Amino acid sequence: MGATFGNRFRLTIFGESHGEAIGGVIDGLIPGHEIDFEDIAFQMKRRAPGMTSLSTPRKEKDEVKILSGALDGKTTGSPLAFMILNEDKKSKDYESIRFTPRPGHADYSAWVKYKGFNDYRGGGHFSGRITAPIVFAGTIAQQILKKSEIEVFTSITKIGNVESQKFKGSIKEIEKLKEIKASRLPSLEEGKSHLMEEEIKGARAAGDSVGGIVECIIYGIEAGIGEPFFDSLESHISRIMFSIPAVKGIEFGEGFNLAGMRGHDSNDELIVTSQKISHSTNNNGGILGGITNGMPIIFRVAIKPTPSISKTQSTVDLKKMKEVSINIEGRHDPCIVPRVLPVIESAAAIAILDMMMLK
Amino acid sequence: MGATFGNRFRLTIFGESHGEAIGGVIDGLIPGHEIDFEDIAFQMKRRAPGMTSLSTPRKEKDEVKILSGALDGKTTGSPLAFMILNEDKKSKDYESIRFTPRPGHADYSAWVKYKGFNDYRGGGHFSGRITAPIVFAGTIAQQILKKSEIEVFTSITKIGNVESQKFKGSIKEIEKLKEIKASRLPSLEEGKSHLMEEEIKGARAAGDSVGGIVECIIYGIEAGIGEPFFDSLESHISRIMFSIPAVKGIEFGEGFNLAGMRGHDSNDELIVTSQKISHSTNNNGGILGGITNGMPIIFRVAIKPTPSISKTQSTVDLKKMKEVSINIEGRHDPCIVPRVLPVIESAAAIAILDMMMLK
Amino acid sequence: MGATFGNRFRLTIFGESHGEAIGGVIDGLIPGHEIDFEDIAFQMKRRAPGMTSLSTPRKEKDEVKILSGALDGKTTGSPLAFMILNEDKKSKDYESIRFTPRPGHADYSAWVKYKGFNDYRGGGHFSGRITAPIVFAGTIAQQILKKSEIEVFTSITKIGNVESQKFKGSIKEIEKLKEIKASRLPSLEEGKSHLMEEEIKGARAAGDSVGGIVECIIYGIEAGIGEPFFDSLESHISRIMFSIPAVKGIEFGEGFNLAGMRGHDSNDELIVTSQKISHSTNNNGGILGGITNGMPIIFRVAIKPTPSISKTQSTVDLKKMKEVSINIEGRHDPCIVPRVLPVIESAAAIAILDMMMLK
Amino acid sequence: MGATFGNRFRLTIFGESHGEAIGGVIDGLIPGHEIDFEDIAFQMKRRAPGMTSLSTPRKEKDEVKILSGALDGKTTGSPLAFMILNEDKKSKDYESIRFTPRPGHADYSAWVKYKGFNDYRGGGHFSGRITAPIVFAGTIAQQILKKSEIEVFTSITKIGNVESQKFKGSIKEIEKLKEIKASRLPSLEEGKSHLMEEEIKGARAAGDSVGGIVECIIYGIEAGIGEPFFDSLESHISRIMFSIPAVKGIEFGEGFNLAGMRGHDSNDELIVTSQKISHSTNNNGGILGGITNGMPIIFRVAIKPTPSISKTQSTVDLKKMKEVSINIEGRHDPCIVPRVLPVIESAAAIAILDMMMLK
Repeated sequence: MGATFGNRFRLTIFGESHGEAIGGVIDGLIPGHEIDFEDIAFQMKRRAPGMTSLSTPRKEKDEVKILSGALDGKTTGSPLAFMILNEDKKSKDYESIRFTPRPGHADYSAWVKYKGFNDYRGGGHFSGRITAPIVFAGTIAQQILKKSEIEVFTSITKIGNVESQKFKGSIKEIEKLKEIKASRLPSLEEGKSHLMEEEIKGARAAGDSVGGIVECIIYGIEAGIGEPFFDSLESHISRIMFSIPAVKGIEFGEGFNLAGMRGHDSNDELIVTSQKISHSTNNNGGILGGITNGMPIIFRVAIKPTPSISKTQSTVDLKKMKEVSINIEGRHDPCIVPRVLPVIESAAAIAILDMMMLK
Repeated sequence: MGATFGNRFRLTIFGESHGEAIGGVIDGLIPGHEIDFEDIAFQMKRRAPGMTSLSTPRKEKDEVKILSGALDGKTTGSPLAFMILNEDKKSKDYESIRFTPRPGHADYSAWVKYKGFNDYRGGGHFSGRITAPIVFAGTIAQQILKKSEIEVFTSITKIGNVESQKFKGSIKEIEKLKEIKASRLPSLEEGKSHLMEEEIKGARAAGDSVGGIVECIIYGIEAGIGEPFFDSLESHISRIMFSIPAVKGIEFGEGFNLAGMRGHDSNDELIVTSQKISHSTNNNGGILGGITNGMPIIFRVAIKPTPSISKTQSTVDLKKMKEVSINIEGRHDPCIVPRVLPVIESAAAIAILDMMMLK
Repeated sequence: MGATFGNRFRLTIFGESHGEAIGGVIDGLIPGHEIDFEDIAFQMKRRAPGMTSLSTPRKEKDEVKILSGALDGKTTGSPLAFMILNEDKKSKDYESIRFTPRPGHADYSAWVKYKGFNDYRGGGHFSGRITAPIVFAGTIAQQILKKSEIEVFTSITKIGNVESQKFKGSIKEIEKLKEIKASRLPSLEEGKSHLMEEEIKGARAAGDSVGGIVECIIYGIEAGIGEPFFDSLESHISRIMFSIPAVKGIEFGEGFNLAGMRGHDSNDELIVTSQKISHSTNNNGGILGGITNGMPIIFRVAIKPTPSISKTQSTVDLKKMKEVSINIEGRHDPCIVPRVLPVIESAAAIAILDMMMLK
Repeated sequence: MGATFGNRFRLTIFGESHGEAIGGVIDGLIPGHEIDFEDIAFQMKRRAPGMTSLSTPRKEKDEVKILSGALDGKTTGSPLAFMILNEDKKSKDYESIRFTPRPGHADYSAWVKYKGFNDYRGGGHFSGRITAPIVFAGTIAQQILKKSEIEVFTSITKIGNVESQKFKGSIKEIEKLKEIKASRLPSLEEGKSHLMEEEIKGARAAGDSVGGIVECIIYGIEAGIGEPFFDSLESHISRIMFSIPAVKGIEFGEGFNLAGMRGHDSNDELIVTSQKISHSTNNNGGILGGITNGMPIIFRVAIKPTPSISKTQSTVDLKKMKEVSINIEGRHDPCIVPRVLPVIESAAAIAILDMMMLK
């Protein structure tokens, strides 16, 4: 279980880090959508490993092969299945750690759940690599959303000890977000990208890793999208965000800050702007009662430091039931945040489009 | 949509603040469970309004009437339907604000979504009152979990500017959490409950309200519960948490703090304790790869200040499309946090039990 | 499990024959639908027991009380919960048969599944009485479908040995179906209703019961409704039809007759009639590839004889594990077919409307 | 929509007749199941085209390639994705009929639903070829069921005008069903297979096709499997059966015959046989109240004649909106029944296993 998300735009994912292929099936796609493959290649590349000095040297072309659901470059409306062959897999790296779970990884949880039958190589099904199908599906979702003038943006508000300013709601910031879309360390505050890069390099030099916070903005969405209670837009978005490995927290609008605020300061008052209803502030991040209020959706997710580090760690030998030391030899990122940006945008787009299709 | 949660323990809720009744249907209950009605009355009372000077003076007995699914006090295994009649409803209070959405409430979102046909009285279906069915169902879930020695606790770690310590993982704290279960402002740190109460009284005196943070601990859960990706335990818990009105953030384990940490410090190393596998720390809050690792589940939710305040606020008259002032005459809590505690415990129990039943 | 049906028009039902109440919750209703309560009373009455000499003398007013989801007679768009109190329940009748399952009933299946904790009185949750919520929800569905000029009709094509002609597709027959809607034994063939009545009376005189076949027509539905494979319209309709107690078979269009036909005779050729595409025949019952082709949907369901009969039958005493005789003292219909007509129409309307809302 | 079936054993299918590949994803598989690939090859071959003189000469090796979810021949518990490349596709055959829907096919329904964007080649996603993934998944389901000594059998009870006897419930018949499993025209009645073959050859000689009835037996299933109402075992089985192209009817036990029976004759009386509860007859086909009663499950499905025939037919040119003649040049079976047998067995196994996993 766990492979399928969505009510109307329904994505099923599959794959293991070192298996034959990873991929997915999208059911519920509108017919006649002309897929922008260049855009897909761009987004896949943002997520792919080995693209910069900041990420793992594992090289994957991550070329997506469409198996069904498209004809002459357009969606048919039937399930769109796609796969990415696993090419640069070095299974040898992981054999030695089959019975010594890596701290911070799903190795031990999975070993218990699957009674030892799970694919242990490179985290198997729990590898961050399985987010590639989310990026593919989410990029198509973004292409469809763009037809309704809805766009999804991300910036980094924190890496280790470096903080950068959050979105305040201006058109100028939206312009800036468009500009920095291709950046590995997009930041709304001048000069912070460089400091973040230094923070990541510092972690790598120490044989360690570092976490961060990503802010996501969904711009252009109308009021009235979402459902009450269990299908609230916050429920739907948070459900898919916690599917992304390394995400450990999410907050909407002012989020955890609201705990220290008074109602008079946190309530978003309604105003009329050029004959339209708007709000003077956006502390609720565009969602009230689980339903959009017409303001941009704002949320932030906390990303933990990459669990794979070069430093020696303690763990347990599951067969001998005794504590042992472990050195992770494989390839790993000192900071997963740059590569997680397109995953967050894609996941957000999937959740939003799915809810819009319920309308 | 939005009324149903769960795969195996499936709860459907209904009701409006000023309608005939609120209630729910639980499908998938095990047959033969002897319902502890005293326990239910206790939990319902914790959530009920008018219980202390800190909450709204609205009085509701919140007596639950079971309509089906139980025979001689035991569950039959068939859908258990229940309802709570709405008694102390003063609909007049709300008529004047039908077309003037209250800031911070779902009034405007709902008005757009339901094209003006929604029940506007007291927030209608979006009222916090609709959490009473969650408490009823979640109390039964907790009773069933207790048979597997799993218990759910909450404490408050923040109200306005008052912070209290978080759970660190000791048995002593668990004992403390059991002791303070009946407290309106349970806190793990000595003397903080009183300060929180002062904070709330201060907000009320100012005609205002205040928010907070609630920490939830699920104690006694074994490793191997949960699913990968879209049905990760974090996804499932967060989905139901964001169903609770006023929740605007959630974090597991060290959550947002992880953004500022290094991998070496955040990874939970495995250890052997009395022949069993355990972990030296619990920064991941008991969940890795969406699946429990045997450590207690720890998460915190951010609660925004009650949007209903006595102070005059600005809003828009939806019919005249012009800005107007609004004074909310109804009954309201200066702080929703004390009453939300049993809702969070219940929601957590529902999510956990549902996932355990998938195993 | 088993209480919820539908993707967009989502019905959850509850209740036991001799419990407090039966009822349901409809999630996904459009807001602003003005409920026609007279129509509901009419349909509920068609299904209610004790209405004619042909049915059980049990009297139930079957008055539906709406608990939520409607304001001033109009749907709000929030979950519409409703219940029918159980009034005329004579639990004593059933106590003696708690451990002696009635042949042809779910008594033994339920006893095994629920480990003896199920409500055994009057069949409990498995009682035909639980179809009343389906009629209520389905009547609302029919009211909504009528706005798109879609109507659902039924006639009886067989009772015991009496057969009556099937729908051939003419407008005249549709007129006839409208006329006979209120009839207890509606038949497209002149004089057959009377013979059917004799057949039922004959069965009753023998202390026995008799089955039949009901044909259902969905008229006015456009082409393009339904989904391929697992959500084919035939899949969706058959799923809800087999929820109705006593239904043991379903066929679309020529159904089982197709087994004896050649392709050239069974294929429905396309034609152009008054500038519109139509078909010269309707052997596929309006559905091809799971999707409507614009022709009326035609299906027939087989109804088994009421299992409750006055004749002495053999069964097993579950406690003593030995064979015993059983005489069913309770109230029962000699033929369930007349009362099942509104249930079939309602169930069909729910399935159709749900699929239309997916479009 | 329509690509996914199941609650716990969840199958998602994809593909078009002339696309890149067809395949599926199974989520919810138990870990550690050793896949019997020889068995899979055998079942795939039963369904494959071009195997006998009775079927289409299209040759497909139908070799299944596993993409994920298996390691060293054993299931990992993660989503098992698989695909079958489309090799022998002759798209040219179908281009001429793009705008002239073939009678009896989904061409017109699909054209309306997908606004002309659907893959029209060889029926696209609506091709019977898409049942191959069902056979693959269902064969694995059968392998798992066999561990609980549950087996699924089929025989043909009708082809055109040739009828063969139905299953009466004896062990001897079960032995016979095992023996004839590899037969193209398995029949419980001596000499009927040959007559059926003649019937098919007759249809082919006439440039026509012929339909039939398949009976399916699920043997060895215990009492207590299934759920009430909307998840009744009959609902679940019928839902998946109507996913199979060409299925137009289903009946359980005596099915449509029950319409002509009296209650005393149709009720299955309970008996005690070698200390176990059984029934003297099986008119209900092993299911009462949607739940198994311990008797073998028996159902029959009606298969319509293959819609593709060599005879000239009438249809409409969708672009010119005028009636035209059509000659279908492609490859087609004079009778689909022999190839549908493994599909029915597989679909039944999926529905049964899924329901058993809910227990």
